[in-house]
Amino acid sequence: MAAHPKKIIIDTDPGIDDAMAIFLALRSPEVEVIGLTTIYGNVYTTLATRNALHLLEVAGRSDIPVAEGSHVTITKGTKLRIADFVHGADGLGNQNFPPPKGKPIEQSAAAFLVEQANLHPGKVTVVALGPLTNIALAIELDPAFAKNIGEIVLLGGAFSVNGNVNPAAEANIFGDPDAADIVFTSGADVLAVGINVTHEVVLTDADRDKLAQSNGKFAQYLCKILDVYFSYHHEVYGTRGVYLHDPTAFLAAVNPALMTYVEGVVRVQTTGIMRGLTILYNRQKRFGEETEWSDKPTVKVAVTVDAPTVVKLVMERLMES
Amino acid sequence: MAAHPKKIIIDTDPGIDDAMAIFLALRSPEVEVIGLTTIYGNVYTTLATRNALHLLEVAGRSDIPVAEGSHVTITKGTKLRIADFVHGADGLGNQNFPPPKGKPIEQSAAAFLVEQANLHPGKVTVVALGPLTNIALAIELDPAFAKNIGEIVLLGGAFSVNGNVNPAAEANIFGDPDAADIVFTSGADVLAVGINVTHEVVLTDADRDKLAQSNGKFAQYLCKILDVYFSYHHEVYGTRGVYLHDPTAFLAAVNPALMTYVEGVVRVQTTGIMRGLTILYNRQKRFGEETEWSDKPTVKVAVTVDAPTVVKLVMERLMES
Repeated sequence: MAAHPKKIIIDTDPGIDDAMAIFLALRSPEVEVIGLTTIYGNVYTTLATRNALHLLEVAGRSDIPVAEGSHVTITKGTKLRIADFVHGADGLGNQNFPPPKGKPIEQSAAAFLVEQANLHPGKVTVVALGPLTNIALAIELDPAFAKNIGEIVLLGGAFSVNGNVNPAAEANIFGDPDAADIVFTSGADVLAVGINVTHEVVLTDADRDKLAQSNGKFAQYLCKILDVYFSYHHEVYGTRGVYLHDPTAFLAAVNPALMTYVEGVVRVQTTGIMRGLTILYNRQKRFGEETEWSDKPTVKVAVTVDAPTVVKLVMERLMES
Repeated sequence: MAAHPKKIIIDTDPGIDDAMAIFLALRSPEVEVIGLTTIYGNVYTTLATRNALHLLEVAGRSDIPVAEGSHVTITKGTKLRIADFVHGADGLGNQNFPPPKGKPIEQSAAAFLVEQANLHPGKVTVVALGPLTNIALAIELDPAFAKNIGEIVLLGGAFSVNGNVNPAAEANIFGDPDAADIVFTSGADVLAVGINVTHEVVLTDADRDKLAQSNGKFAQYLCKILDVYFSYHHEVYGTRGVYLHDPTAFLAAVNPALMTYVEGVVRVQTTGIMRGLTILYNRQKRFGEETEWSDKPTVKVAVTVDAPTVVKLVMERLMES
C-alpha cells in the first residue's frame, strides 16, 4: 500500500462492472477503501447491499463497512428503472450466491458520507457508480459536505453522444436526474466520466479468456458472473466485448492522468422525453442572455481516455492471486 | 436557368443571413423561387413580411409572392424570442430602409405551402430558415403535406454541440420546439442543417472587403447591413467573421453533395431547461425498451460541410453584377 493511500468510498449498485471496480479497488495500493455505500440501479437497493456485503466476503474484507443507501429517488414517487436485463436478476450474473453473513452498519449511506467527509476534510474521494441519490442526500444533509468531500468521481452522463437508456440519457443520470443536477451544481470537486469515454474501454472476449486462465481469485470469480454481461453487449451493441464503465471511473479517481478533461458547467434535464440528459457548457460562446448554466460552479468532464492502459491495469490487478 | 430548376419556397425571418440566402437563391440557376413565406425569429412576423417584400423589391423580383406566416408559436402563449440583438432592431442592420411598395398575398404561409405542394407534388423544396411554425401548421392543415412536399431543408438544431440560445438549444428550434418536433416526426423528406455544420462556414472580414469592392448590386447592399452581424459575432464568439447559417442551408438544398449526412430519428425537447434541444438517435445501440425515438420516421442530419466551396459559391453569386 502506498504511504498515504487515498481514502475512498465506493457508492455502488452491484452490478457486474461494480464487482469488477470493487475488486480492482481492493487490489489498488493507491487507495484505501473506507466504506461502500449502496444504491438502486443495476438492482434494487436491498439487493445492492446484499451484493456489496457478499463481494467483500468473497474478498475477505468484511472489515470494510457497508452503509445502505436510499431506496427511492430524491424527488419521491419516480418509478425506479432497474437494469436486471444487463446484470441478471441477482445483479451478479444469475449465479445465486449464498446470502452474506455480514450486515450493513446502522448509519444511512448519506449519514456515513457526511461523517467521513467531516472526519477527513478534503481527504475522502467518493467514487459514485450508480444514480446519485445518496450523494445529493449528503449535500442536503450537510451544507458543508460539498466543501468537505475531497472529490466526487462519478460514472454518469452521455456528453455529446447518445445515451444508453434511450438516445438522450445515460442510465445513472436517468436513475435520478434531480439528484444528478444537485451534485453537478453543488460546488463540489466533481469529475464526471460518461459513456462517451467508457465506450472506448472494452474488455474483449480474448481478455476474458485470459482472465479465466489466470489463478487470480477475483478473475476466477468474475469469469463466473460475466456471461450475462457479455451476452447483453453482444445483443444490443454488436460488440465482442463489454464496456468497463465502473472500473474506468474508479481508475480515473486513482490516476487522473489516464484521461483528459474539459471544465465547464453541467446541467441535467429533469423532465420530458430527454429526462436524464446532461449538457456541458463549453464556453465557446459568451451568451448575452442569462442561461440556466450561468453562475453555476464548474465540474470536470472526461473527454478522452487511455483505454489500453485502463484495460491493462484492470487485467493485471484482477489476475493477481 | 437550368432546364428544370428546382421549385423552392423560402420560409424566412429576414434577418441579415436570410437576406444573403434570398439574394443567393435569386442568383442560383439551379432553383426557381416560387414564393417566400415569413415567420418570427430574427424579427417579429410583421417585420419579416415587410423585409421579405423589401428584399424582393431591391432585387427587382416583386413578381415573387410573399405569404405572411404565423405570429405565434404552434402551442399558443409561448413568449417569442426575437434576435434583434443579432440583426438590428429592423432585422437588416439598422439601416431604416423605406417601407416596401408591395403587399403580401391574401393566403397564409401555411395555406400557400399546402397549395404549392398540392400543385406540384414531390417537386417543391421548402428551405426553412426560421422557427418551424409555418411548416408544422401546413402539416396540421393537410395530412398529405408531408408526402406532397418534395423536401424540407431546414436551418436548425445543434447536434452534439452547444446551442446558440443557451448551451442546449439552437435559436430556430428554440423558437418553436413543438413545431420542430412535429416537422421532424412528420415523415416528410427532411434535411436538418444545424449549427454543428454552419459554424464551420465563416465569411471573414477579408471576404467582406472583397464583397465591398465588387460591383454586384447584392454585394453592395449586403455590405451596408453586415456591420451589426459582424459586431455580434466578434463580441460573443470572438471570431473575425460571421457564420453563414442561412446561405449554407440554402446551398444544401441546391447541391446536397456539399455536405455529408447521417440518417436517423430526431426528437426535440419541448419543456424544461433544455427546451429546444435536438437529439438524433444514431442507431449504434439497439434499445430493448421502447423509447420516444422508436418507430418514428427518420430524417437526414448534416454532419460535415465543404465550407470553402460554400463560401466560394456565396461570394461568386453575390458579387455578380
